[in-house]
Amino acid sequence: MNFQRDTACALRQFHPRLPVNVILFEPAEVDRPLSRSDPRAQHLCEVLRRQPGDTFDAGLIDGPRGKGTVRTIGAEALELSFVWGGPPPPGEPLTLVLGLPRPQTARKILQEATTLGVQALHFVRTERSEPQYAQSSLWSTGEWRRHVLAGVAQAFATRMPEVTWDRDLATVLDAARVDASTALPRCGIALDNYEATVRLGACDVPPAAPIWLALGPERGWGPTDRDRLRRCGFTLAHLGERVLRAETAVVASLAILRSRAGWI
Amino acid sequence: MNFQRDTACALRQFHPRLPVNVILFEPAEVDRPLSRSDPRAQHLCEVLRRQPGDTFDAGLIDGPRGKGTVRTIGAEALELSFVWGGPPPPGEPLTLVLGLPRPQTARKILQEATTLGVQALHFVRTERSEPQYAQSSLWSTGEWRRHVLAGVAQAFATRMPEVTWDRDLATVLDAARVDASTALPRCGIALDNYEATVRLGACDVPPAAPIWLALGPERGWGPTDRDRLRRCGFTLAHLGERVLRAETAVVASLAILRSRAGWI
Repeated sequence: MNFQRDTACALRQFHPRLPVNVILFEPAEVDRPLSRSDPRAQHLCEVLRRQPGDTFDAGLIDGPRGKGTVRTIGAEALELSFVWGGPPPPGEPLTLVLGLPRPQTARKILQEATTLGVQALHFVRTERSEPQYAQSSLWSTGEWRRHVLAGVAQAFATRMPEVTWDRDLATVLDAARVDASTALPRCGIALDNYEATVRLGACDVPPAAPIWLALGPERGWGPTDRDRLRRCGFTLAHLGERVLRAETAVVASLAILRSRAGWI
Repeated sequence: MNFQRDTACALRQFHPRLPVNVILFEPAEVDRPLSRSDPRAQHLCEVLRRQPGDTFDAGLIDGPRGKGTVRTIGAEALELSFVWGGPPPPGEPLTLVLGLPRPQTARKILQEATTLGVQALHFVRTERSEPQYAQSSLWSTGEWRRHVLAGVAQAFATRMPEVTWDRDLATVLDAARVDASTALPRCGIALDNYEATVRLGACDVPPAAPIWLALGPERGWGPTDRDRLRRCGFTLAHLGERVLRAETAVVASLAILRSRAGWI
């Protein structure tokens, strides 16, 4: 994968209107001049209006945040230098499992869920998911990574979540009944408009337990999906009677779970 | 205000890609044929593919939900009939106060906050809000109402929230220290990245109290805003260290407060 190009694309996506709260770099990039045609260079010069000697917020992808300094602004490239802080804080153990949505919805969820700090984001095949959505160029071209990077930069963070889109619900659920990072059994909650037994805000969230939140595809969970979720210890929960778009439901339910876990 | 035209515009906005969970009508419209050029007629015929005799989910704005039936499909108009249910359930006492955002952000918040069931949405002038945003055609042409209607239809609801955009923070806060509908003192919470004393998820939300959530404009609250919020009994709360876009923060914080109030 061409990390440089992907990062550049990610930044182009929200240039110049959306806030770039931290400018992200791959480790291999920081000792090289930054081409004037790179969207990050354009952002530094045209939006932030940085001059030689000025600083800006920078981040190393999956590494520390720090301060960048514009050393020189040449016709072809910018020379930058960096001072990095300590390693990034560990992320919270929060995994999102989603019945594969249409690409337009997946783009929003990739960015929003990343901004809200998921550690892993698994788009899965389910009984009623649409197989053709997995063929989208969003996945095959690596475009998905731009949306994740945009979410990381928005959050003023550097950590990238793990993202998968080629597995089925069973494989993803079975892979990690006990969270590898914490060795605690997971707290699994699946949103379900039809067979929920509790409202999401009343679900038991044990302290420090890794949280797994699962949402069905557009057409909802099928009976086999529900059996599997229940066998894996998931509680079926609802978000009330108001019908939400998938991306709104993702933000709302991640926020509620983060609040119940004591993180926000 | 031309309600018919506004409703039609609202429906055009999400035709045909976004889900129209309930087709909304003004009371004055339900005894008249529906023009074939009305986006709701197009949605019924082309997206839902309804034939004479078929039914669909309908709602009267600020009134009951019910079932519509397509009686005839003519060259110029559809004849419809309706059976209405009981009055809509009372909304939850949830008010959102927002430092006036740029119109592009306001559009998203109008729809999202409505979907999440706010009863009132006040866009206010604050110390650091941008006065020119109030001059946008979003407000002067009534376009704002389309986004609210889209949120109502998305939520499968009929109630429209109150929306204002021409007052300052002080006026809105002073107008309703005790909620008119419940006669209870309000529970006021303002998001603040700088002087928050508690995380939002740990704020005290007394049962049945009307909830007022306030978010500052892009450049945040000023010292006078904060004094005023504190004098009006607002708690300053935060949503953690990750930086969220305004519309994401609105959805996340409304969801957390609805969950803490026991509604979802």
